[in-house]
Amino acid sequence: MNILVINCGSSSLKFQLINAESEEVLAKGLCERIGIDGRLTYQPAGGEKEISEKAMPTHTEAIQFVIDALTNEKTGVVKSLSEIGAVGHRIVHGGEKFASSVVITEEVKKAVEECNDLAPLHNPANLIGVEACEKLMPGTPMVAVFDTAFHQTMPEKAYMYGLPYEYYEKYKVRRYGFHGTSHSYVSKKAAEVMEKAYDEVKTIVCHLGNGASVSAVLNGKSVDTSMGLTPLEGLVMGTRSGDIDPAIMEFIAQKENLDIEGIMNVLNKKSGVFGLSGGISSDFRDLTGAMAEGDKKAKIALEVFAYRVAKYIGAYAAAMNGVDDIVFTAGIGENVSYVREQVCSYLGYLGVELDPDANEKFRGEQGEITKPGCKVRVFVIPTNEELAIARETLALVK
Amino acid sequence: MNILVINCGSSSLKFQLINAESEEVLAKGLCERIGIDGRLTYQPAGGEKEISEKAMPTHTEAIQFVIDALTNEKTGVVKSLSEIGAVGHRIVHGGEKFASSVVITEEVKKAVEECNDLAPLHNPANLIGVEACEKLMPGTPMVAVFDTAFHQTMPEKAYMYGLPYEYYEKYKVRRYGFHGTSHSYVSKKAAEVMEKAYDEVKTIVCHLGNGASVSAVLNGKSVDTSMGLTPLEGLVMGTRSGDIDPAIMEFIAQKENLDIEGIMNVLNKKSGVFGLSGGISSDFRDLTGAMAEGDKKAKIALEVFAYRVAKYIGAYAAAMNGVDDIVFTAGIGENVSYVREQVCSYLGYLGVELDPDANEKFRGEQGEITKPGCKVRVFVIPTNEELAIARETLALVK
Repeated sequence: MNILVINCGSSSLKFQLINAESEEVLAKGLCERIGIDGRLTYQPAGGEKEISEKAMPTHTEAIQFVIDALTNEKTGVVKSLSEIGAVGHRIVHGGEKFASSVVITEEVKKAVEECNDLAPLHNPANLIGVEACEKLMPGTPMVAVFDTAFHQTMPEKAYMYGLPYEYYEKYKVRRYGFHGTSHSYVSKKAAEVMEKAYDEVKTIVCHLGNGASVSAVLNGKSVDTSMGLTPLEGLVMGTRSGDIDPAIMEFIAQKENLDIEGIMNVLNKKSGVFGLSGGISSDFRDLTGAMAEGDKKAKIALEVFAYRVAKYIGAYAAAMNGVDDIVFTAGIGENVSYVREQVCSYLGYLGVELDPDANEKFRGEQGEITKPGCKVRVFVIPTNEELAIARETLALVK
Repeated sequence: MNILVINCGSSSLKFQLINAESEEVLAKGLCERIGIDGRLTYQPAGGEKEISEKAMPTHTEAIQFVIDALTNEKTGVVKSLSEIGAVGHRIVHGGEKFASSVVITEEVKKAVEECNDLAPLHNPANLIGVEACEKLMPGTPMVAVFDTAFHQTMPEKAYMYGLPYEYYEKYKVRRYGFHGTSHSYVSKKAAEVMEKAYDEVKTIVCHLGNGASVSAVLNGKSVDTSMGLTPLEGLVMGTRSGDIDPAIMEFIAQKENLDIEGIMNVLNKKSGVFGLSGGISSDFRDLTGAMAEGDKKAKIALEVFAYRVAKYIGAYAAAMNGVDDIVFTAGIGENVSYVREQVCSYLGYLGVELDPDANEKFRGEQGEITKPGCKVRVFVIPTNEELAIARETLALVK
């Protein structure tokens, strides 16, 4: 069965068509500037990338162009819509309602909508994508795959904040965690690589991309993760602050004459390694480059980033009373050997012994970067959220 | 030399008179409701506690009553002011200016004043105490002992937030840490107990009182601590939230129609184990009592508290690439064996093996609570900030 995987934002839409049996990507692409003007990028497997400007007043037109491209006589990869057996949608926030993926019904859509205020920028856009697909592909089963679902196994002690209990009861203020599809995918993969049963290992996953989070996966279940109510908490990220003293907000509000919204904008968009480096970049290639040229702030930004990751690994080793393996994934985790080296430099006490050659070697590909026979093994495992969504979708519709 | 130790708040003032050579407490007490009406509590060593209502319009009258009590013919412990050789003042915030205690001069007072906006509730009150003493005890040397000083050895990677670098440059927004006098005192004591050189051990101190913080002390120097710009960050405390997703503030502001000040009030005074337990208490005797009677929220509050402490210990083991000993101190750390047991239950992977009998036995007194020969040793060590301040003072004035 071919599965169309959709990741829909407020003005963009990423897609992949995946053969769920062979797990091949048949075609992939991106719609941008939806509601503004519109641009489609489309690339069939083994073919050229095509970029075309097309009017996309709404997501419905965008999806129509995707379908047209996929079924196009010349560059399409299927003959007709009937060859697309299901659609898997990435949904950011499933609140406490969704601990796993589900086939989308009217009831499910309503429940997702009820999570809107937990993810006001993402969930409404995700739902628009679902409804546009429903309109153009009536009868095709749709599946919702939630970023938060994998972390719903967290125990209370991990998800409760030190806040008045009534905030949890009234508003569901708690830690949810994100990147669940990725944490699930790579932790499972790591167990396979180690030839261990997934429900018998203690794994720490470092998903280090522009957004970044660490998770503790105990016997196949997420028991803690660094993002919280929103994706702002935890690690220092590309432009997000991660953990700070909450009192800083009042302090900065007074000093900079900002309201809460203004501060949130700083914490989400002007902070992280971008802010720490004095605005050099949120891209780690730029930062390692600047550091190599002697830039002090770039160096500090990288040090703070790695130190925070190492501390979360330490914290999660305590959360699970031990750790068997650590996995680096996503853009930075898969590619920036300097960060991995820095992080592992703190972890000798756990039994991590980095193999520097292996660490330099694996970029964007799967590999083990600790020495053979090491007590705690460290892996690089590329994440593949689209494939994970296709698998979840297949499991529910076949 | 007798040293008067003063801890001055906005409407209260605690004092101890300590013989710095014998380290005996000669007398101690408390002035309360300064500026309102006024009450003095005074207790000479081995004597009865006296409570008397006295008009204290300002701290000057309060200090005068303290001096009168100390030199009183019947219940006093010294004959005259000349037998008080120096005064040691606890000062909350020394910013980046003070990495150690100093003899107070006009210049020092100015520098402390410049830190006022980092601790607007504490530093001005501390300075009022200094000036009242100067007025009444002219010529007696005064020493400032800072809560932040011990943590000034933190490296940049530990004290920098993932915020725009200019906030550090313009406003000194960084992590400072508090309870430094206590962390220093008990970590040094632990090295003595282990008969190890202070500059050759990796110690994690858990100062668990109504305010609570953890520190990583590497070779006698603080390299990280859980409180930050203010004492709100870090552990879940009696009524303080500790770490939360910064985005929660905007979320709660909208839901509860609060401004930043209103939210800060909730985070400082209505959160922590008090808030989590649904308002039962911030006192751990009440909470363990309620838990014993089956109260679910009290149990969660205690679980969340211990879990957060354990995660900080794990994080700091990573920060130092190992740990030799862990110390519990302050009200909860010294007395609540249930919390210590819970925390240690996470730490088997480090080589912590709790001795349950020893853990039950030591309350408010020094003892080792791990099994003999254990890889990472855990101690209960009562803190004594007044004695530490007296020692610091003596060292500077003798």
